Amino acid sequence: MKNHEKPVEQKTPAPKFGDMPKEDFRRYGHELIDWIADYFENIEQFPVLAQIEPNWLKNNLPNSAPVTGEDFAKVLADVDKLILPSVTHWNHPNFHGLFSTSTSSVGIFGELLSAAFDMKAMLWRTSPASTELEEVVLDWLRQMMGLNEGLKGIIYDTASVSTLHAIAAAREGLNLSIREIGMSGRDDLPLLRVYTSEQAHSSVEKAVLLLGLGQKSLVKIATDEKFRMIPDKLREAIEEDKTNGYLPFCVVATVGTTSTTSIDPIPEIVPICEENAMWLHVDAAYAGSAAIVPELQSCLKGCERADSLVTNPHKWLFTPFDLSVLYCRHLDLLKRAFSLVPEYLKTNETVTNQMDYGIQLGRRFRSLKLWFIMRYFGQKGMIERIREHCRLAKLLASWIEEAEDWEILAPVPFALVCFRACPQGVKDLDALNEKIMNEINASGEAYISHTKLNGKFTLRVSIGNIRVEERHIEKLWDLLNGKLKEISRKGAKNAKEE
Amino acid sequence: MKNHEKPVEQKTPAPKFGDMPKEDFRRYGHELIDWIADYFENIEQFPVLAQIEPNWLKNNLPNSAPVTGEDFAKVLADVDKLILPSVTHWNHPNFHGLFSTSTSSVGIFGELLSAAFDMKAMLWRTSPASTELEEVVLDWLRQMMGLNEGLKGIIYDTASVSTLHAIAAAREGLNLSIREIGMSGRDDLPLLRVYTSEQAHSSVEKAVLLLGLGQKSLVKIATDEKFRMIPDKLREAIEEDKTNGYLPFCVVATVGTTSTTSIDPIPEIVPICEENAMWLHVDAAYAGSAAIVPELQSCLKGCERADSLVTNPHKWLFTPFDLSVLYCRHLDLLKRAFSLVPEYLKTNETVTNQMDYGIQLGRRFRSLKLWFIMRYFGQKGMIERIREHCRLAKLLASWIEEAEDWEILAPVPFALVCFRACPQGVKDLDALNEKIMNEINASGEAYISHTKLNGKFTLRVSIGNIRVEERHIEKLWDLLNGKLKEISRKGAKNAKEE
Repeated sequence: MKNHEKPVEQKTPAPKFGDMPKEDFRRYGHELIDWIADYFENIEQFPVLAQIEPNWLKNNLPNSAPVTGEDFAKVLADVDKLILPSVTHWNHPNFHGLFSTSTSSVGIFGELLSAAFDMKAMLWRTSPASTELEEVVLDWLRQMMGLNEGLKGIIYDTASVSTLHAIAAAREGLNLSIREIGMSGRDDLPLLRVYTSEQAHSSVEKAVLLLGLGQKSLVKIATDEKFRMIPDKLREAIEEDKTNGYLPFCVVATVGTTSTTSIDPIPEIVPICEENAMWLHVDAAYAGSAAIVPELQSCLKGCERADSLVTNPHKWLFTPFDLSVLYCRHLDLLKRAFSLVPEYLKTNETVTNQMDYGIQLGRRFRSLKLWFIMRYFGQKGMIERIREHCRLAKLLASWIEEAEDWEILAPVPFALVCFRACPQGVKDLDALNEKIMNEINASGEAYISHTKLNGKFTLRVSIGNIRVEERHIEKLWDLLNGKLKEISRKGAKNAKEE
Repeated sequence: MKNHEKPVEQKTPAPKFGDMPKEDFRRYGHELIDWIADYFENIEQFPVLAQIEPNWLKNNLPNSAPVTGEDFAKVLADVDKLILPSVTHWNHPNFHGLFSTSTSSVGIFGELLSAAFDMKAMLWRTSPASTELEEVVLDWLRQMMGLNEGLKGIIYDTASVSTLHAIAAAREGLNLSIREIGMSGRDDLPLLRVYTSEQAHSSVEKAVLLLGLGQKSLVKIATDEKFRMIPDKLREAIEEDKTNGYLPFCVVATVGTTSTTSIDPIPEIVPICEENAMWLHVDAAYAGSAAIVPELQSCLKGCERADSLVTNPHKWLFTPFDLSVLYCRHLDLLKRAFSLVPEYLKTNETVTNQMDYGIQLGRRFRSLKLWFIMRYFGQKGMIERIREHCRLAKLLASWIEEAEDWEILAPVPFALVCFRACPQGVKDLDALNEKIMNEINASGEAYISHTKLNGKFTLRVSIGNIRVEERHIEKLWDLLNGKLKEISRKGAKNAKEE
């Protein structure tokens, strides 16, 4: 492997004290920018999924840190030699697994500058830029999504943490002194219940576990043929729980579920929550981005009456991971749930100190990258890209519908297609589709993932990469058909030989 | 303000679809690298604390996002015009408030490359590089800190989240079915109790609140004259609680408290935890970095028997925010507390999937920047820098001790000095010291913060910036003495005039 190493021009170890000399910062900085530019230019030449075996990287690294500093050129050479083969390329336009997410160039610039400032937004005074830009940018996004002014935004790292905070605020809103005396050692506290659909993201359950509510506190409501929560089932579950002396306090509905991007009927869920004085949290981590497109904005219908809503610009707004936004109508409850101000953080200013609104004391300057993105692409540019992804998804869905050997397994409201191969005469369709998926993924040509719908092994193709074009979807369709034919041919041959 | 705007060379709006054209990425990327190089070169010319009034930035930004995309040069011009004046410069070598933290150049490179890869480390297959490099780098750090092999590391964003996970794992270890049936609606669950010192970080209490344990569950143990938890008081509190039928399950001890960097006596706390089968979590968020210095490593004595320990490379290892490490002896309990694998995330690989170990599903590729830092500076380079900071702190402390008008208010085990002005004849020393602090901070020349020790308003000077030199400490000492004289002179004059 030694021969892969770039020739080291000159030895420039770190000085005794202080940072890297400034001329080296410039030189290596420019080199890295060019490296990244080349990387994006050549990204389609890489296998989408890393092709290494488990432990390959680990086994190729020393057992302990170098005693003396090394030339940074040597480190960069190891990025090529060791890191790059170990990377699964989320930015590859044929990454269609999970949700296809990707970063824009200006998003990277935002992270770069934010890392240079290295501020910790806890108090306003330690980071006025972050505190105020966050407020402005989240209000811009709120308007683009057509949400009403009552919803104030705050940035967390991930939707899991946003949802965790929403449920924590809902719990605080119960006024059961949980902040003061907690939930253990009490016999006056009924079983608290949270409701979500069978199709909800696992983050809801994780939040419930962390909050000490337990799996018994989470009720999973059945979904209809379109994978949407059934409001009547929700109402029934709440009624039954009340009869049992339980305390229903929160519903987490989803706009854009992970398996199929189905949309829970928020307008019908809202009155149920209102009648029962329950908190409604909407998980729009994925589809919130789609709501900036005028003809898709109706997916958030009813959310003007929700208590909170999470959306993830790092999913589908070309923002590097991480940036999740919680919009909340009751920031005061979040503050009541979390605010603790030790002496060393007391100040005299009457300003927003973001540390008061969550578990994390410090926050990164995350709004900067979203500001860069909104300004560089503009509302129109963002809308056009999301619209194009939805067009491509519908195009793929139309090919699937027309093909004899394939079928669509869920509606396509946004840019995710759920489907499977269903050639006549094949008994085990699950095995066939799993084989198609595994072989495509192993080839490195594309990455697709799966889910199970009504017991059927279902292929998922997500389209959301900023670099994706129609030709990538054509390539994927060819891959799918090619694999199906290849596997069918082998199957027929094997049957003949038997 | 328009005249501050840089001349725009050429109009390069975003294309209809796709990302920024690659030639623009190179051009603006190089421009940003040079901008950052200039920024670091000139950092001492900026006021440490932003000098803007609250809402200045907000009031200078439009009410909504631009409809059409803008030239990125215009955005960069606004960084100069609007963002820069709103930044509190954490990288300024005279930022001595809170904890002095700063990023190294190679740390920025790590963030830059990590943003370009934009991977989400949930499953091994979606990010082998992040999963494996994290394991390697955290083992390197563990060795440098002299911790034993039983402690396996995992990266979270902040110490607040690391400590939250530690207490959650401790709770899971009780085997009280809290994961399954939760804590509400039960009358069989005793009051769970967590113990920490009066000097512990607010994150411990925040974690207790979020976990649904409540403030009543948190016992704050008194500290001695050196601000260290008193083991006998801990033992008494546990005994008393057991007598009352409460369930003591976790102790959070601190090595390097936030107010004074005091060190709880871990070797004496360990047997108390062991006798009572309690989880010992050590908050070494600050001082863990110091433990890489051979002559300071004894600060972690006893931690070889702790159940978990948090340390923050983003505090004092020149790593851009965020990167917090939780070392834990029972990763299985963390997994038991959090693991939930929905169908769309099921894979056949027998590998570590990091999503199983915490509330967050995805993780940023944070180990990359720490790997860059360890390789570029080497163990020696890192040790020498931390050692130098401690030398500078001891130097400042020696000047304070020798001066008649100043006094040290806490021991200086690492690189934080707690002290105050105490000139003879001044009655209200609190007001005097607060005035000194506020005037220095308002001047923009340096930033110091405060705490309260034994009721006394105490100045805190933290030394941890990678760019800090002896001259910066001399400058601060001059500022302190200058302000004291100025205020005393004015006071005398006012008294005379009265």
